Amino acid sequence: MLLRRSVIALVLALGVMCDTVDNKVEDCDLSDALKKEIASYAPVVQKIINTAVNGTFKGITYNELALFVDKFGNRISGSQNLENAIDYMINKSVAYGLDNVHGEEVKVPHWVRGSESATLVEPRNKSMYILGLGNSVGTPPEGILAEVLVVKSFNDLKEKAASAKGKIIVYNQDFVSYGTTVPYRSKGATEAAKVGGVASLIRSITPFSLNTPHTGMQTYGENVTQIPTACITIEDAHLLQRLQDEGYTIKILLQMGAQILPDVTSRNTVVELTGTEQPEKVVIVSGHLDSWDVGEGAMDDGGGVFISWGALALLKSLGLKAKRTIRGIFWTAEEFGYVGAYGYAKDHANETDNFLFVMESDIGTFNPVGLEYAAGAAGGCIINEIMQLLAPINATQTRQSPSVGSDIEIWTSDGIPGASLDTQNDKYFWYHHTPADTLEAENPSALDKNSALWASVAYVIADLSVDFPRDSTKLKN
Amino acid sequence: MLLRRSVIALVLALGVMCDTVDNKVEDCDLSDALKKEIASYAPVVQKIINTAVNGTFKGITYNELALFVDKFGNRISGSQNLENAIDYMINKSVAYGLDNVHGEEVKVPHWVRGSESATLVEPRNKSMYILGLGNSVGTPPEGILAEVLVVKSFNDLKEKAASAKGKIIVYNQDFVSYGTTVPYRSKGATEAAKVGGVASLIRSITPFSLNTPHTGMQTYGENVTQIPTACITIEDAHLLQRLQDEGYTIKILLQMGAQILPDVTSRNTVVELTGTEQPEKVVIVSGHLDSWDVGEGAMDDGGGVFISWGALALLKSLGLKAKRTIRGIFWTAEEFGYVGAYGYAKDHANETDNFLFVMESDIGTFNPVGLEYAAGAAGGCIINEIMQLLAPINATQTRQSPSVGSDIEIWTSDGIPGASLDTQNDKYFWYHHTPADTLEAENPSALDKNSALWASVAYVIADLSVDFPRDSTKLKN
Repeated sequence: MLLRRSVIALVLALGVMCDTVDNKVEDCDLSDALKKEIASYAPVVQKIINTAVNGTFKGITYNELALFVDKFGNRISGSQNLENAIDYMINKSVAYGLDNVHGEEVKVPHWVRGSESATLVEPRNKSMYILGLGNSVGTPPEGILAEVLVVKSFNDLKEKAASAKGKIIVYNQDFVSYGTTVPYRSKGATEAAKVGGVASLIRSITPFSLNTPHTGMQTYGENVTQIPTACITIEDAHLLQRLQDEGYTIKILLQMGAQILPDVTSRNTVVELTGTEQPEKVVIVSGHLDSWDVGEGAMDDGGGVFISWGALALLKSLGLKAKRTIRGIFWTAEEFGYVGAYGYAKDHANETDNFLFVMESDIGTFNPVGLEYAAGAAGGCIINEIMQLLAPINATQTRQSPSVGSDIEIWTSDGIPGASLDTQNDKYFWYHHTPADTLEAENPSALDKNSALWASVAYVIADLSVDFPRDSTKLKN
Repeated sequence: MLLRRSVIALVLALGVMCDTVDNKVEDCDLSDALKKEIASYAPVVQKIINTAVNGTFKGITYNELALFVDKFGNRISGSQNLENAIDYMINKSVAYGLDNVHGEEVKVPHWVRGSESATLVEPRNKSMYILGLGNSVGTPPEGILAEVLVVKSFNDLKEKAASAKGKIIVYNQDFVSYGTTVPYRSKGATEAAKVGGVASLIRSITPFSLNTPHTGMQTYGENVTQIPTACITIEDAHLLQRLQDEGYTIKILLQMGAQILPDVTSRNTVVELTGTEQPEKVVIVSGHLDSWDVGEGAMDDGGGVFISWGALALLKSLGLKAKRTIRGIFWTAEEFGYVGAYGYAKDHANETDNFLFVMESDIGTFNPVGLEYAAGAAGGCIINEIMQLLAPINATQTRQSPSVGSDIEIWTSDGIPGASLDTQNDKYFWYHHTPADTLEAENPSALDKNSALWASVAYVIADLSVDFPRDSTKLKN
C-alpha cells in the first residue's frame, strides 16, 4: 500500500497523462521541471561516457572480462569453478572499493555432462557433433542404439506417433525465432517419450551454424519416462531429414554420461554503491555469473556481468554516488531456470517495495542501441528522456515490452519497472550456448559504451529527486 | 609447332591487335565475323540457361550432389570411400548417356588421421578443438606434453628461437588472405622444428570461426625433424596468446594418431561429350572428387565436380554436341598436392596441344558472377564476348590472372588458356577444410546457374569455327 500511494502521488506530480501503455515520447506529458532535471544530468553523463570511451576507464571492462574468462573459462551451476569465480568477483570488487560486497547463498542444481557422443551407424558411419541438454539423464554405458524417426514439428510427431515407439526421435524444426523455436529443446524429450521414443535429438536453436551444436536447458514433464536428450547441428538435422526422405533406414548410437547430482550451495554476488540520501531504495544492474559448460561464457553472460560490475567501478572511479543505492547483482544458476534470482526474490521479498528499477544484460553486449524496458506510461516517459542523454554514443533507442529480462523478469513481469540492454545483437544466437561463446564475441569499444550506458541510466534513476514510478496498471492490491 | 602455327594463324585471322596482356573489352579488336558468330550463340545459351534455371534440368545439380554426399560423406585420398564414390560417378555418368566414361589410374597418398586431441593442462584444464594436418606424423601414444611458446609470425619465431627448444610452437598469425597466410599451415611444422619445437599448432586459416578448426596440407622440409602438427581455432590461438601475455606458463598435451600409409591406386574420372567434327580437340571442365576427411566435401569440391558433371549432363539432355570434345574430369587427390592432375598431365603429355581450354571450379559454387581467366589478349577478348551471353543470369564479369585454378594451374601456368569459376564466395574460407563443409554451403539455384554457365562457356568454345587461341606471349618454343 505504501508503494501504491507513493506511485500515484508521483504520477500526479509528474503530470503524466498517457492513455496507453504503448507510450511514445510525443505522448509524454512530463512536467517541465522533471524534464529539466533529467536534462541537467547531461554533463555528468558526458563525463561518464568520456571516461569509459576515451578516458581512464577505457578498455577496463574488456580487460577485466578477459582476465576473468582466461582464468576460469566456463562456469556451470554446481561446479567448484563457479564458486571460485564468485570468490574472484568478490575480491575484485573489494579491491575496487565497492560497498557492501558479499555473496548470498542459494541452493543450485548440479548437472554434469560426462562424456557423450552420437554416431550415425546406418546408412553409413559418421561421427556427429552433439551437446547433451541440461537436466538430461544419461544413457546406459553401452549407449542406446536405435532406429531414427525424423520429424519437422510436434504436429508431425503426433501424425507419426504410431511409428515412433523404440526410436530416437530427431526434431528438424525450422528456426523461426528463439522464443518460438526453443520449446523443441525444452520439451522435445517429454513429447518424444510420450509416443515411446527412447531418446531425442534436437536441431540446435540457431539461425546459423558451422556444424555448431548448442546446449541449453530442458525439463521433463511429469509422469513421462525420462529419456536422454541432446542437440545436434543444423547440418546433421538436415542430413538425417534427407536420408529419411531418400528412403534409408537410419540408426544412431547415442552415448551420454550425463548425471544429475545433489544440489549444492552457490551464491548470488552482490556489490553496491550505497546511496547518500535514501540508501534503502535500490536501482539494480545485473547479469548472471554462471554459464554453460562449453565455450567460456564470455557473451552469455560474462559481458552482462562485467558491464554491471563495470558500471559500478566506473561510477566509483569518478566519485559519483547517487542519492539512492545502486546495487550490482551477479546471479548464479541462471541457466538452470533463474535459480539464483528466484532465491534472491524470496530472501528479499520484504525489500521489493524499495526496488525502484531493475536492469539486466543477458542478450549480448554488442554495440549498444538503447534499452528495452518494462514500465508504465510515466516510467516510459522518464526512460525516453534519460536515453536522450546517451546521444553521444548513439544509444538512445527505447522499446517497450510487457516484461523484460531473464532473471529480472521475476520482477518486471510483476510491475516492478526495469530494462534490458539493447544492442546490435543479430548474431547473438550464433554463439549462444556453444563452444564459440568466447571472448571473440566481445569487443572492447562496445563494452566501454555498454558500461557507460549502464552506469548513466542507473546513476540518473538512482539520483533523481523523485522515485522512479511504478506501473499503475500493474500494481498489486 | 603445329600448335604454334595454328595459333599465329588464328591471331591474324581474328585481327587481334591488343597491346597488353591486361586487355579490356574496349581494347579488343575481334573481327566482326567472330563477334557475330559468338553473338549467334545467344539463343542456344538462353536455351541452356532456361533448361537449367527453370526447365527440365532445374534442381538436378543440387539433387545429384545431395544424393552423392548423403551416400558417401567425405572422400579423402587413399580411402576406399573415395574409390566407391568414383565408381558411383562412373555409373551415374554412364546412366546419363555420357561418352567415353572411364577412370584413369594414378597412385595417391594415403594419410590417415587417427584419433587426436589437444588438452590445455596449464594454467587450467580445457579441451581444445583441433584438426591434424595432412601429411603430419602422429605423436607417441601417450602424447606430447610440453610447454607452449606462442608466436605471431615466422619473424617472431626467429626472435624467440632461443626459447623455442622443447616447446610446442603455437602460431597466432593474423589472417590476411588465404594465399598470404597459408604458409603458416604448410610450413609451420618445418620452421618450428628448425628451432627445436616438438610440435606445432597453427591458428586455422580463416577470417571467421565459431570455434572451428580447419585442416589442410602441410609438407616437411628436407633434413628437419618431422614433428606433429595440427590447426587450432582462432579462439584458442587468441586465448593462448592472452595467457602468454598475462604471464601464465602454458602446457598442452597433444595426442595424434596420424599415420602415413603406403600409396594406393586411385583414379581420375573422365566423362565426355565427343566432338562431332574435331573430336581430338578438347575443352575441359573439371573439379576434384576427393575431399578432406571432415565435413562432407560438398563445397570443396563436390560443387565443382557436380557443375562439371552437370554441364555435360545438361548439354546431353538438350542433344547439344559441339564440334570439338567437351571433357569432364573429376580429379583425384587434389588435396594432397594436385596428385591426380599431375598424373593426368604426365599421361596425356602428348595430347596437350589439343587442350584448347581448361576449366576448373574449386573456389566455391555460390551465386556465379563470371570467370577468372588466364589467356592471351586474343583469348581474353573472346572470353569477354562469350561472357556477354551470360547476361540472363548476371554472370558476365571477367578478370584476368597470370594463371588460374588449382589442378589446372599445371596447364594455365604454362600458357594453356583456362578459366576458374568466379562466384560470390566471400564466405568460402568460413567452410573450407572444416566439419562445416556440408551441403548447407550449397544452394540449388546457384548450382543451376553454375551448371548453365559452365555448359555455355564450354559449348561455345568447343563449337566455334576457330580454335581458341593460345597466349602468344607464353608459347613454348
